[in-house]
Amino acid sequence: MFKTFIGPTATEEDLAYLRPETAQAIFAQFKNVLETSRQKVPFGIAQVGKAFRNEVTPRNFTFRSREFEQMELEFFIKPDEAVEAISGKVAGAAEAFGRADLPVGQDAQQRVPTTPQPNWGWETWHKYWVEERVRFYEGIGLSRETLGFHHQTPAELAHYARACTDILFKFPFSKKDENGNVTGDELEGIAARSDFDLSQHARFSGKPMGVFDDELRTAWAKLPKEKQDELWKRYYENRKNYLLKSGVEPEPAQKQATDDANGLAKGQYIPHVIEPSAGVDRLILALIANAYSEVTETDSKGKSETRVILKFHPRVAPIKVGVLPLLKNKSELVKIALAVRDLLRPWMNVFYDDGGSIGRRYARQDEAGTPFCVTIDFDTLGEKPELLDTVTIRYRDDGRQERLKISELLQFLLSKVR
Amino acid sequence: MFKTFIGPTATEEDLAYLRPETAQAIFAQFKNVLETSRQKVPFGIAQVGKAFRNEVTPRNFTFRSREFEQMELEFFIKPDEAVEAISGKVAGAAEAFGRADLPVGQDAQQRVPTTPQPNWGWETWHKYWVEERVRFYEGIGLSRETLGFHHQTPAELAHYARACTDILFKFPFSKKDENGNVTGDELEGIAARSDFDLSQHARFSGKPMGVFDDELRTAWAKLPKEKQDELWKRYYENRKNYLLKSGVEPEPAQKQATDDANGLAKGQYIPHVIEPSAGVDRLILALIANAYSEVTETDSKGKSETRVILKFHPRVAPIKVGVLPLLKNKSELVKIALAVRDLLRPWMNVFYDDGGSIGRRYARQDEAGTPFCVTIDFDTLGEKPELLDTVTIRYRDDGRQERLKISELLQFLLSKVR
Repeated sequence: MFKTFIGPTATEEDLAYLRPETAQAIFAQFKNVLETSRQKVPFGIAQVGKAFRNEVTPRNFTFRSREFEQMELEFFIKPDEAVEAISGKVAGAAEAFGRADLPVGQDAQQRVPTTPQPNWGWETWHKYWVEERVRFYEGIGLSRETLGFHHQTPAELAHYARACTDILFKFPFSKKDENGNVTGDELEGIAARSDFDLSQHARFSGKPMGVFDDELRTAWAKLPKEKQDELWKRYYENRKNYLLKSGVEPEPAQKQATDDANGLAKGQYIPHVIEPSAGVDRLILALIANAYSEVTETDSKGKSETRVILKFHPRVAPIKVGVLPLLKNKSELVKIALAVRDLLRPWMNVFYDDGGSIGRRYARQDEAGTPFCVTIDFDTLGEKPELLDTVTIRYRDDGRQERLKISELLQFLLSKVR
Repeated sequence: MFKTFIGPTATEEDLAYLRPETAQAIFAQFKNVLETSRQKVPFGIAQVGKAFRNEVTPRNFTFRSREFEQMELEFFIKPDEAVEAISGKVAGAAEAFGRADLPVGQDAQQRVPTTPQPNWGWETWHKYWVEERVRFYEGIGLSRETLGFHHQTPAELAHYARACTDILFKFPFSKKDENGNVTGDELEGIAARSDFDLSQHARFSGKPMGVFDDELRTAWAKLPKEKQDELWKRYYENRKNYLLKSGVEPEPAQKQATDDANGLAKGQYIPHVIEPSAGVDRLILALIANAYSEVTETDSKGKSETRVILKFHPRVAPIKVGVLPLLKNKSELVKIALAVRDLLRPWMNVFYDDGGSIGRRYARQDEAGTPFCVTIDFDTLGEKPELLDTVTIRYRDDGRQERLKISELLQFLLSKVR
């Protein structure tokens, strides 16, 4: 970690570290958020921000850096024992999704349903979030074929983690495996972290991190005695194992686990978390690598030129639309072009360009990854009366052109860039 | 500054500091941005990010902290000599705005025009940016009455600065001056920093930071000899003074200033900057302080209750709209309420609340600063046929209620929150 000192005297008392991940603030503030936001478990807290790791060896452009931007979601869920007390049975992924061996990252027909159910346990929630995150990447232009998956083996998992799935992107610098396939490099890990994080915060801060769940208390009271005992025992074992693995002595661990299991019977528990944790810089690098393409065009004189097109998904393109008057020195064209720019500008990033031939201006926007160009020409002015107040929309990826009414332009573009 | 070390060995070679301001990256990257963005002077580069100052004594909540968020704009302009060469004469603020003593922060009638002109010099650009920044604050709910101004005196100014105006907000903790008036505490400073920053970067990096201005070169060639000499001499003196004040010996300073003035005659110069630099955390604190208000209401039993309303401008309210089915247990109401939530959610932050009486739910949203609530009731279902598919829109600040068609809801809200 990066070490520094707060205040003018650099004594051990002033020692501070730059945070190596963003997640801990979420856990530390968990109770504050819970109490002020009117949320009930299950719910999530997301955060994006800088993290710093001094031990990292920077490599592959911005893929791995000492200072980087992270985005993390801590999604808090009920422990399986609470789900079972309330719903009678915990739906594992097999039951929830209708097949036992659901592979993540499959095509639409094989996807998990998106409506969470009260009977979902941690396993189902974990698969759900893997799937949701894949959909996020697809939604900004990274198709399934560009992604890979790595399911951490028990040996790779941290002792408190129950599962972790990494989502990979096949970067140009990604290596091949022994079968000659590019598996990719990690964009994000989605971990099922049990109740480890909040338990640790509670243990070391001395502040309780449990929640009270009225639904659980009501349901518990109605359970047959043997079911209560079974769930009590399982929760007790889980809590005791956490405490023992964390270095607590057997006797206090048993006492604490007994208190915790007695709490469960009264509607209290420490939430478990599913944690999708992604690197923003490497995602940006993936978006650029994915968008990069070249076309070679031969002009009428037989001269060929290779130019770059950045095929960003409209949602992530830095410039959404180029607004181009056909000619710079025709004030009627310029006037309408400026009006179109001002119409669109409050809603999206617009680049106004009146310099050079229209072909060169299209090529410039292609290189910047702008998905749409709008050209104001003589038909806009009514040269063909039926085209009055229409503009040309030109698509970056295939060069296709269409006419569109100015009055319909904003809605058309908004529907594409959102 | 906060000191740290990069890499495992903490030697002097690995020494690094957390940045005390965000601006320097803009200057260091100035040429890259200029060359890739197709911009011409005047243009600006804005940045927002963390800055760290170890010497700061934290106080007044988040007003002053060691780690804070800054937003800065470096707006690059031509030196006055270039403006004069191109436009014949530099318009000072008096000429540009039609009055000699334009006080910043006046009401609409006295405001500066918002269309920059080619003949504006640094003084006019500086006043323009003060005015633009005030408009920004007004646009997010800080009225002129809540703001104050401080014009730095020559004694207060840094040696390279030509003017600096601070925009203040009258915080609850702001002190009174000798006349008993609250002047406020600084939100932002708008400085005219001459060409100091880019000159320093050029001098210490050895990389040229000048731009080439074709318009200037063409205009210069057409100037009478005596005008050329006059502008040459003035630019030479300015450059020489900068170099001497920066500790360069007289002889090399004269030589460098001669080169620089010869460059001007060929269309080359180092841009000057106007720098609005604002603290984001203290702005958020100002928005909260400005929004905070209390109302005391007496119910029919004579019991009075004081409750909090956060009167955020809709543009900055964290939640834009609360969506409330009148009754939680009427599935027809809930179904439409969820549809309304889903209609609005891609466009703004929506809070769905079905818990408790409608009055309590309004009060909760008032306390969170939500400017609008939408209630789905029996009229929505057509109990009064003429009100079918309409909802109640309820305004936070005065409790006023209106009916609106669901089909018009999104446009109505978008027009308020943008």
